[in-house]
Amino acid sequence: MSLFNQAASDFLFISGPCAIESLDQMNAILSSPVAPTLIRGGIFKMRTKKSSFQGLGAEGIEIIKTLKKNKSFRFVTEITDPRQIDSLLPVVDCFQVGARNMYNYELLKELSKAQKPVLLKRGFSATLSEWLGATEYLADLGEEKIYLCERGIRTFETKLRNTLDLGAVIYLKKNAPFKIFVDPSHAMGDSQYVEQASLAALAAGADGLVVEVHPDPKNALSDPEQALDLKMHLELIAKLMKACPLFDKKLRV
Amino acid sequence: MSLFNQAASDFLFISGPCAIESLDQMNAILSSPVAPTLIRGGIFKMRTKKSSFQGLGAEGIEIIKTLKKNKSFRFVTEITDPRQIDSLLPVVDCFQVGARNMYNYELLKELSKAQKPVLLKRGFSATLSEWLGATEYLADLGEEKIYLCERGIRTFETKLRNTLDLGAVIYLKKNAPFKIFVDPSHAMGDSQYVEQASLAALAAGADGLVVEVHPDPKNALSDPEQALDLKMHLELIAKLMKACPLFDKKLRV
Amino acid sequence: MSLFNQAASDFLFISGPCAIESLDQMNAILSSPVAPTLIRGGIFKMRTKKSSFQGLGAEGIEIIKTLKKNKSFRFVTEITDPRQIDSLLPVVDCFQVGARNMYNYELLKELSKAQKPVLLKRGFSATLSEWLGATEYLADLGEEKIYLCERGIRTFETKLRNTLDLGAVIYLKKNAPFKIFVDPSHAMGDSQYVEQASLAALAAGADGLVVEVHPDPKNALSDPEQALDLKMHLELIAKLMKACPLFDKKLRV
Amino acid sequence: MSLFNQAASDFLFISGPCAIESLDQMNAILSSPVAPTLIRGGIFKMRTKKSSFQGLGAEGIEIIKTLKKNKSFRFVTEITDPRQIDSLLPVVDCFQVGARNMYNYELLKELSKAQKPVLLKRGFSATLSEWLGATEYLADLGEEKIYLCERGIRTFETKLRNTLDLGAVIYLKKNAPFKIFVDPSHAMGDSQYVEQASLAALAAGADGLVVEVHPDPKNALSDPEQALDLKMHLELIAKLMKACPLFDKKLRV
Repeated sequence: MSLFNQAASDFLFISGPCAIESLDQMNAILSSPVAPTLIRGGIFKMRTKKSSFQGLGAEGIEIIKTLKKNKSFRFVTEITDPRQIDSLLPVVDCFQVGARNMYNYELLKELSKAQKPVLLKRGFSATLSEWLGATEYLADLGEEKIYLCERGIRTFETKLRNTLDLGAVIYLKKNAPFKIFVDPSHAMGDSQYVEQASLAALAAGADGLVVEVHPDPKNALSDPEQALDLKMHLELIAKLMKACPLFDKKLRV
Repeated sequence: MSLFNQAASDFLFISGPCAIESLDQMNAILSSPVAPTLIRGGIFKMRTKKSSFQGLGAEGIEIIKTLKKNKSFRFVTEITDPRQIDSLLPVVDCFQVGARNMYNYELLKELSKAQKPVLLKRGFSATLSEWLGATEYLADLGEEKIYLCERGIRTFETKLRNTLDLGAVIYLKKNAPFKIFVDPSHAMGDSQYVEQASLAALAAGADGLVVEVHPDPKNALSDPEQALDLKMHLELIAKLMKACPLFDKKLRV
Repeated sequence: MSLFNQAASDFLFISGPCAIESLDQMNAILSSPVAPTLIRGGIFKMRTKKSSFQGLGAEGIEIIKTLKKNKSFRFVTEITDPRQIDSLLPVVDCFQVGARNMYNYELLKELSKAQKPVLLKRGFSATLSEWLGATEYLADLGEEKIYLCERGIRTFETKLRNTLDLGAVIYLKKNAPFKIFVDPSHAMGDSQYVEQASLAALAAGADGLVVEVHPDPKNALSDPEQALDLKMHLELIAKLMKACPLFDKKLRV
Repeated sequence: MSLFNQAASDFLFISGPCAIESLDQMNAILSSPVAPTLIRGGIFKMRTKKSSFQGLGAEGIEIIKTLKKNKSFRFVTEITDPRQIDSLLPVVDCFQVGARNMYNYELLKELSKAQKPVLLKRGFSATLSEWLGATEYLADLGEEKIYLCERGIRTFETKLRNTLDLGAVIYLKKNAPFKIFVDPSHAMGDSQYVEQASLAALAAGADGLVVEVHPDPKNALSDPEQALDLKMHLELIAKLMKACPLFDKKLRV
């Protein structure tokens, strides 16, 4: 069974905050008029500086448990250590492996035993060969449970946080058996560019998006510049709904 | 007057061979059922190796003169030396400055006096600041005669010829006053990926495309892998015609 | 206590095979006329492809235990998972964190508790800020137990395996409190260039080298192109011995 | 005849200001106790921004003519347009082609006819293949009149102006017939790092250096951060004099 039973023509819109900060924050997002059911949210964060907010950890797991009692949604979260698997299993529908851990083969080996789908982000400067090489460590899951997520690569350019590599999406759709997602939030690093990047990803043939949204971006504990506010979130969904049919896709939120 | 009197909503599809090789070759392209009127074609080529085909030079200019007697089209060609201006002026509607010459400020200074529009390709690893800096040398032309063309940048990735940077297109559309074109042929380096890259460029907000087409790609004297054949050329135009309205654009070929 | 009690003027030459393959292989290296006492050797390998040799694991640990009964040497090996700490502790004098794990903060947090020195290799495209950021996770060890190792970065150039960034060494020596090592083997990827790169690293101000050597490079199970054979190993040591005094350094092998 | 009759064992130290600003400025440098005879200085500058100082042009040529009446030195300067050849020929002993013009094949073709040696800097992100490809356009000069100059490449790292690629120097010394110079000033972009980078270049096997010096760096009209002052200039020469013999080189200033 593939992630969220994705059909070939489904375009999945996964959204949520960079980091889960509180029950209120999550409720604000889940109460959107579109009632999103594909939710991302960080519990264990990887931060370049040790002094940055590292995620709520166990408290974040409890928040998801509480929410799932009343609301129906699928939950994607990043795992940063094999020892987190047991505590995350009850709340997670898909494990995300972040860019910093794409080469963490020990983690991938453990995830290959956990049966859940894995969304494998591309390393900051991972070649396509290396990225596909990393999927070999997940092969026991089966192709349909391995998802790749392009999130921008590192180049000489500094105006944007990363360089969105949609050529990679185009290449992989023709040369690899996996579903390919795009994270326009990390790629662009600025919420004002996320909508346009999302449309370009759809046109490039991506199978879905992973987008950051926050009820109050200015006060987000991490990545405040790139999170959509709830209004932009709605507008993006509306645009995608309109654009999907042109590319023979059906939007699922 | 802007390039081809482009309206804000016009999406310009400029196509033609990497290099003009013969009158027959050009006639084959111009005789396409879509009757293209925005034509590119190399006369003076920049080649990494001196032994590669360097373009027809004066003979290429004569071919365009001959064609223009009977057919109505706008012609874009690369200029590689200020001393070519006089001979190119009678046939050229827009000068192209290639990636290798983006930093050739002496050339740009001369072009700023020539009154014709200039399509300024991005250098292989030019930052957006440098690219915009280069437009300062063209400023006397006026904003409406300066066109930028993203053609893929150089990164660590080797599966594709270049890394198509659509983030740059998105950024520039919000932060610079110029029309932004995309060259999916050089970016992808392989004709099978050009259609998808073209659609992504449209969705990213580009104002037009510069695409390589050849009546017999396998026998092209330069860039044989990336040129569309006449059938793919037609199909791409058809796809764009269908997609343009979604992005509030009108296709001009 | 710092790694191997390194004095400010000591230039440490750490050498050994990419991967420990057998007792015989290790004995051949340890029996060199220079009697090396600073030894590296891989036990748990990180390989881009799952089908590549992944290291001997527990058997490798036994080989080091056996060797240490009769020979006096310090041993550096890569750790790829926090769960390996206990089994490695008895044989390891310094943990190496490889390029692929530089961002593996969970691993770094565990190593910060293990009291042993850590040699932290630079990620494939890690900025100097990120590299120094990663040392924050090791801060409990104290500055004198944190070693940085430049091993070449990823750029557009493909003639060599990586791009040796000696500018980074020069920068870090003036702006960071840590000892800086250089791995010329991974940087150059070809044994014929290792000697010259080693001398350049010394001249750039590095505090030591980590060099791959193998008694029979052609038949090495990993990285056969870049390992020095025993003769080249000796010659390099001789060259360094001659060059060190010019840079006010004393060679320790 | 090669540049400055360089013997295989000669290590050439070419120094001078980024841009020639005045007769006084040049006299201050030429009056150094070491009496330098290999001088660089910009007359026509390539600047990213049009509003930056573009060089003295004709006035700079007159300054060199005046100086050559009384002092004996060889002069290297950048040429940015084929139309400058005639006016530069009387004062120039070696033409420099800057990083921005490495791909300017029309300029290279003209220089191949001018009989003078050419110092060809590496483009910002030129591959070694492209760099060697560009030398084909200069081939009529003969190998001994073609000099390559590594000046740092463009990577993701931003702490230093460029990434000094000494691996390229090592590679080219074994695989190309040309003398290889290094420009530590542009590579590091900060005068405090120039000495160490110069020593590393010598150790890597370079045949010489091109170094920026200014009698009053803080008030230089271009590149003020990276120019050595006269005291640092002397100290660097002294260090190189001491280090050259170790690498079987003889310093020529």
